[in-house]
Amino acid sequence: MSAPFIVNYETSPDQYRHWTLETDVQDGSIATLTMKVDEDGGLREGYKLKLNSYDLGVDIELYDAVQRIRFEHPQVRTVVITGGRDRIFCSGANIFMLGKSSHAWKVNFCKFTNETRNGLEDSSRHGGLKFLAAVNGACAGGGYELAAACDEILLVDDRSSAVSLPEVPLLGVLPGTGGLTRLTDKRKVRHDLADIFCTTSEGVRGQKAKDWKLVDEIAKPAAFAETVRAHALKLAEQSERPANAQGVKLTPLSRTFSDDGVDYEFVSVNIDRQARTATLTVKAPAADQPSDIAGIEAAGVHWWPLQMARELDDALLHLRTNVIDIGTWLLKTEGDAAKVLACDAALIAQQSHWLVRETIGLLRRTFARIDVSSRSLFALIDEGSCFAGTLAELAFAADRSYMLALPDQPDAAPKLALSDMNFGLLPMITGQSRLSRRFYDDEAQLASARTQIGNALDADVAMQLGLITSNPDDIDWSDEIRMALEERASMSPDALTGLEANLRFNGKENMATRVFGRLSAWQNWIFNRPNAVGELGALKVYGSGTKAKFDFERV
Amino acid sequence: MSAPFIVNYETSPDQYRHWTLETDVQDGSIATLTMKVDEDGGLREGYKLKLNSYDLGVDIELYDAVQRIRFEHPQVRTVVITGGRDRIFCSGANIFMLGKSSHAWKVNFCKFTNETRNGLEDSSRHGGLKFLAAVNGACAGGGYELAAACDEILLVDDRSSAVSLPEVPLLGVLPGTGGLTRLTDKRKVRHDLADIFCTTSEGVRGQKAKDWKLVDEIAKPAAFAETVRAHALKLAEQSERPANAQGVKLTPLSRTFSDDGVDYEFVSVNIDRQARTATLTVKAPAADQPSDIAGIEAAGVHWWPLQMARELDDALLHLRTNVIDIGTWLLKTEGDAAKVLACDAALIAQQSHWLVRETIGLLRRTFARIDVSSRSLFALIDEGSCFAGTLAELAFAADRSYMLALPDQPDAAPKLALSDMNFGLLPMITGQSRLSRRFYDDEAQLASARTQIGNALDADVAMQLGLITSNPDDIDWSDEIRMALEERASMSPDALTGLEANLRFNGKENMATRVFGRLSAWQNWIFNRPNAVGELGALKVYGSGTKAKFDFERV
Repeated sequence: MSAPFIVNYETSPDQYRHWTLETDVQDGSIATLTMKVDEDGGLREGYKLKLNSYDLGVDIELYDAVQRIRFEHPQVRTVVITGGRDRIFCSGANIFMLGKSSHAWKVNFCKFTNETRNGLEDSSRHGGLKFLAAVNGACAGGGYELAAACDEILLVDDRSSAVSLPEVPLLGVLPGTGGLTRLTDKRKVRHDLADIFCTTSEGVRGQKAKDWKLVDEIAKPAAFAETVRAHALKLAEQSERPANAQGVKLTPLSRTFSDDGVDYEFVSVNIDRQARTATLTVKAPAADQPSDIAGIEAAGVHWWPLQMARELDDALLHLRTNVIDIGTWLLKTEGDAAKVLACDAALIAQQSHWLVRETIGLLRRTFARIDVSSRSLFALIDEGSCFAGTLAELAFAADRSYMLALPDQPDAAPKLALSDMNFGLLPMITGQSRLSRRFYDDEAQLASARTQIGNALDADVAMQLGLITSNPDDIDWSDEIRMALEERASMSPDALTGLEANLRFNGKENMATRVFGRLSAWQNWIFNRPNAVGELGALKVYGSGTKAKFDFERV
Repeated sequence: MSAPFIVNYETSPDQYRHWTLETDVQDGSIATLTMKVDEDGGLREGYKLKLNSYDLGVDIELYDAVQRIRFEHPQVRTVVITGGRDRIFCSGANIFMLGKSSHAWKVNFCKFTNETRNGLEDSSRHGGLKFLAAVNGACAGGGYELAAACDEILLVDDRSSAVSLPEVPLLGVLPGTGGLTRLTDKRKVRHDLADIFCTTSEGVRGQKAKDWKLVDEIAKPAAFAETVRAHALKLAEQSERPANAQGVKLTPLSRTFSDDGVDYEFVSVNIDRQARTATLTVKAPAADQPSDIAGIEAAGVHWWPLQMARELDDALLHLRTNVIDIGTWLLKTEGDAAKVLACDAALIAQQSHWLVRETIGLLRRTFARIDVSSRSLFALIDEGSCFAGTLAELAFAADRSYMLALPDQPDAAPKLALSDMNFGLLPMITGQSRLSRRFYDDEAQLASARTQIGNALDADVAMQLGLITSNPDDIDWSDEIRMALEERASMSPDALTGLEANLRFNGKENMATRVFGRLSAWQNWIFNRPNAVGELGALKVYGSGTKAKFDFERV
């Protein structure tokens, strides 16, 4: 799997090979997402997606389907996720795909699937969609992890269907797509029962699965459909989605790939292979943006915050998956700050409207994707830039920010501007705003920043407020940036990934951060160990008839 | 370094090669620990401990010295840690030692050094010793991490002495002994400044080090000693240690090593190499134990809770370091529960006395060592056992507990007993009691357990209360245990380590858990990557004149 291979994250229901999306159930308030994986539809060659197992391609469809429900079907309140094959809900990530994948591929795959599952919970938490796993058959590994990301799990009680996490006994790896963390933090399964559950390949079924809190409800086959319906309707009551609203069709992104990057309307990516940097530039809207709901609805998919977020999301996924030897991302912006701040005002004023809420949600998840991207992030706030409000989050997400000081040219000097969007509506997955993260929730520093909302702050003021890392003047600017980039490019990419994963999440932990921190870090360690990936490692020999051979030293 | 080599964790000041301990400063309230590493005194062969760098042997002396201050010198309130070499405080863990070490050795070394540093903070938090790092010269890597574990850092402002974390740029690994986590969680260094600090090998000195919160105070060389004295006295005011008390001499442990284990008076270790298990048996006191301070002082180092804790601590360290291919520890107890419960009553009644407080502290840290041990822990509660109060913590620390049910023999049947010690005095490093961890702080379940304090609970009652995992009767007992152990022994040791590290710490996170979870897991990952440990990895080639060669793919 070392040949260059470009993964495309854009898809649409008419192209799905593995999922079907029904949105007309129960007056439209319930949608059903049915997983029926085409075993010959693997994203890459060399494996068959048997038994409703998944690869990245299957998960890209899931991600797309949920995005479409969010925007195109505003009347949907509960999404039922179920299996479309006989006696199988989902058997998890495809083992043969994992066994053949490079370390980088495995880690990227797990990160995306984690983000998609965290995204289900993000929707649920913010008054949006609720999710119900209708487990109508065997539910193993990643299948159970997907179910655990839903608000509720319903298991058919047919004397055979079990939930299981067989990764440790069968594969010598962890249930790494949030499985272990959701067992504890979310479902509060007692740690010793969780230990048994995770070391028993056949899993747990029926009443015991409910007693151990592995599922929320069980139902006999004859009562299953009715129980699903009843629970889905009950969950729907907790959603704030509208009954009668016009959806916004997510039309294909307009994008142009070249050897050196990608161009969208509001986002561009420019790769410098020599310097090993990618410059990600986000542009402010060129035209005035609507401030009222009618205008926002009319703009629809072309409303700047929505279109920009979709483009940025796609660009991030492209870079993360397809451009892995470029270790530093330079975050830049361009355009008219006033237009961005006007958009921010509309986002804040209209935040209770479903379309605005979903757009803020997409922005929130997209910026959160930056936080967990294993790339060094340097924001460059130079002439013509537009780090204002929502776009200033790019600077606050960065590991460092450099802002050009031009004290003798006050008009030409780049400015940073804050809006209310920087104070809570775009939290990191810790629940903190990036400014709160920056200031460790220090009230005095946050209050100082808040008094500056709407002002155009030059580099020296931004430096005084602690909003940027460095404010070189035009004499020093080029050298300082060049040296910083050269130094960064010379360091071990692994050490930088570990460094950034620790410094960006600096104190607060919750389930989502524990998935990316504690669980993923352990999984990545295991993914490097001969006991998993060596010639006789468990992941490598699975299904071959050969028994895994372990070095039994405990580390 | 693959030859069998036994590490002995017992030492005493007259054997130290690297540290000197002065306790007669300022009427005894201040102790000074001076690090002056004997470069020829490495624990193993093949490296020189230049520039006040350390290896496991140096850290074993530090651990011993702090234990002795705790028990032998009760009048000490502040410990000043300083460097004994010209212009060097400490240059961190010895790189050549790390470069030559196996993965298991590195990880064990980091774990012990982490526990020792967390132990300094544990003492400070519990009214015991305060620590002051008097940084009188270069302070790099692990040297700065040691300083950061102190309550305060004082840096000499001599235009050359800097604090630094050069691991990422020089070695391609992380500052993994809590460095990154303390920068953020404890010192609240802004994340972008921390990024610069951790990628700048020369570090930061003088006023900038203070401005960035890397140190608490700076002082010119001429004023340094006086500033250290003043700060040490100020810190001493926060300690609850007594002015006039008789210390308890930590006499050598009586222990006998054999091929199959170790025997102490109250602890024994028995290794079954075939089954790959070690049985750790902790015995209740044979004689009645004192209930008042006079009796406890008279018993001194032989007071059961103190002696047992010292023996258990030594046994755990021995197993972890020297017996690494034994993956499962069977936790057993023996003796008279009434005697343990009487000891617990004394511990609770006298907990404000310094000696009792220090003993509880040692118990707390010793049980906490179990929680982070990368071994499967099964408690076996069978006939003759004594899982009462403090000793019941062994069952609650276990990944699983099996308790023999003998409903037809109520007198012979093993019993579990709770005491107040199980409800908060021996917290995990999360700050939670193990019962709170078990029940996810559920008040109802904790209240049910609390009503049973002092009662002898048989297996069925313990099962109903949720205190144990399984209650097989005598027909099933042997088979159930045998199968569980065989299954455990067949699984990937790495996957089990990752599983246990996730399930044991199931929700709450704080600085200490983030050190062991997020930071250590990332470090362990990096310690397995070719960019660090490959032939041309940064850690491997350091100091050789050869330049590291990286695969620049970001993972």
